[in-house]
Amino acid sequence: MAPSARLKASHRLHEFDLIRAIHRRYARPDPSLVRGIGDDAAVVAPPAGRELVLTTDLLVEGVHFDLNTAALDDVGYKAAIANLSDIAAMGARPEHVLVALAIPDSYSKGNILRLYRGLMAACRPYRVSLIGGDTSASPDAFFLSLTVTDTVPTGSALLRSGAKVGDLIYVIGTLGDSLAGLELLADRRTVAARLSRAHRRFLIARHRRPVAHCSFGQLLSRQRLASAAIDLSDGLSGDLRHLCEESGVGAEIQAGELPLSPALQAYAKTSRRDPTALALQGGEDYELLWTTAPAKQRRLQRLAARSGRRITCIGLIRPKTFGIQLRDAHDRLRRLPVTSYVHFSGASR
Amino acid sequence: MAPSARLKASHRLHEFDLIRAIHRRYARPDPSLVRGIGDDAAVVAPPAGRELVLTTDLLVEGVHFDLNTAALDDVGYKAAIANLSDIAAMGARPEHVLVALAIPDSYSKGNILRLYRGLMAACRPYRVSLIGGDTSASPDAFFLSLTVTDTVPTGSALLRSGAKVGDLIYVIGTLGDSLAGLELLADRRTVAARLSRAHRRFLIARHRRPVAHCSFGQLLSRQRLASAAIDLSDGLSGDLRHLCEESGVGAEIQAGELPLSPALQAYAKTSRRDPTALALQGGEDYELLWTTAPAKQRRLQRLAARSGRRITCIGLIRPKTFGIQLRDAHDRLRRLPVTSYVHFSGASR
Repeated sequence: MAPSARLKASHRLHEFDLIRAIHRRYARPDPSLVRGIGDDAAVVAPPAGRELVLTTDLLVEGVHFDLNTAALDDVGYKAAIANLSDIAAMGARPEHVLVALAIPDSYSKGNILRLYRGLMAACRPYRVSLIGGDTSASPDAFFLSLTVTDTVPTGSALLRSGAKVGDLIYVIGTLGDSLAGLELLADRRTVAARLSRAHRRFLIARHRRPVAHCSFGQLLSRQRLASAAIDLSDGLSGDLRHLCEESGVGAEIQAGELPLSPALQAYAKTSRRDPTALALQGGEDYELLWTTAPAKQRRLQRLAARSGRRITCIGLIRPKTFGIQLRDAHDRLRRLPVTSYVHFSGASR
Repeated sequence: MAPSARLKASHRLHEFDLIRAIHRRYARPDPSLVRGIGDDAAVVAPPAGRELVLTTDLLVEGVHFDLNTAALDDVGYKAAIANLSDIAAMGARPEHVLVALAIPDSYSKGNILRLYRGLMAACRPYRVSLIGGDTSASPDAFFLSLTVTDTVPTGSALLRSGAKVGDLIYVIGTLGDSLAGLELLADRRTVAARLSRAHRRFLIARHRRPVAHCSFGQLLSRQRLASAAIDLSDGLSGDLRHLCEESGVGAEIQAGELPLSPALQAYAKTSRRDPTALALQGGEDYELLWTTAPAKQRRLQRLAARSGRRITCIGLIRPKTFGIQLRDAHDRLRRLPVTSYVHFSGASR
């Protein structure tokens, strides 16, 4: 909370003063905020009858992003979305953010301004205010850790643990686009040249500027239409596994039902990749996955239609003994592999 | 929130599974915790009539600590204390902690266990529970960012901004010990050999295992005995400046009143250092500094006597135009230098 005191080099001190100025600039009037930037800690008055939701997510240069394929405003933007999406998956409304930042010597004033510009651009639609943080030098990699908080009506948070056998498994949006966008950024010449400009731009935008489904998450929570929910940050395959573990259930996914964008289909064809594999393993889509009791399916479909969102039923919750299996186009079942998403191609070092 | 999904190398996955297991182990029953580890975010029910206090603090290898002079359990311990001390300076009771961690490849299972052991050792006396976090690989340095939350009765948080002209400036404990301990660790042969074993051990312990004054901070807040407060993480000189800036006041410090431990005095003599400079510039003491109206001085002194704490009046709040000045032994005033504490000697790179 005392960024100016970490280092003695005077150019560094000036940068930390800059960050203080940035923090003060992005602080905005907020009825629940008692004390924001400038004290040992922030003070927030939660409205009566509400519970507090807290999440922290971290981005490390060389692991989650590479400055060869990502600009710093995109890094800031995605760090915010990673957190906001966790909040969306709880059915909550993000309110406040704390920013912990370690900055290498090589970063300029312009770099830092760009980072915050992206970060706050992601926060603005949700009216999230910056209430605190800590800043340090870094000997090498850039490191960014955000903590986002918000409140939900008591008892209404969407947990991962509520899925019941027989519940339907839904996702919003389309899957695998972000991974395809990342691959396009890393390997421009071979595949990208054979893809239409519109498809290319769509996939890259999905990677660089994903959306957090905060308002849809809140609708699911308010109307009690989801028994469990999770955001797809690490890919369907891994995140579905987390939900099943927490709920003590298994799942059957219909490969043919996975929602694929036309751009992803074109990309898969051009690059001779299996689109299902991209949809299952691709991370950073930040779509929501949730489960709904069959009796609520019609209300859910009406809600999606009214809000103009594409939602897709991709499978069914099964008993734990069933495990997590994929039913393919030939009606054959196979176990979903335990894969982990690598956030950019350089991370396999 | 999904640590196991960040990397593909299988030994890394095992480590992240280990961290999940550690997190579950350190989770403890907590009446206000609705949902802890294992979901997209943690959910907390704040008691009625209380405000939420949030702080985040970050430690970076090569900036805040060096593994040549610090063991990982001490690093975890101090990361926790840095946050708990911020909370103490708000007059609050720390309740929950979120941990964001980026771990270099070279770290073993044992390293990670040690780190958490230290971290939770610092949290235990305050009954702080681990409610969430995020884990990643790191290409190079180790990063640790904690977020600590707690609640205070509405309107009772001790801010930096309440100091009034004429208020007395107090500190608890003694100053400069941690810096002396750090210097002893970095330079064993020359000075340490001429210092008694007891003094050496005292100063090193003060550096490695500082204490956060949470209970005294709460007493100050409950009994409304402080008009403003801050914790001394970056040294008296820098932290007093923060308090004065936020309160819009100046300050006069009596050099002769600065509380110095016998060990620090011996260290200063042996190393031919100015003990006042050590007390003004040394960081990481994690003592509290606060201001009290003169009318409340007797109640404050009684409180300190009852709780067995050494508190010292070191000066007076002055008008802003006075600036921040030190009155020395010869009754001469001089401006306090704007110095910044460097957390370990290697940080001047």
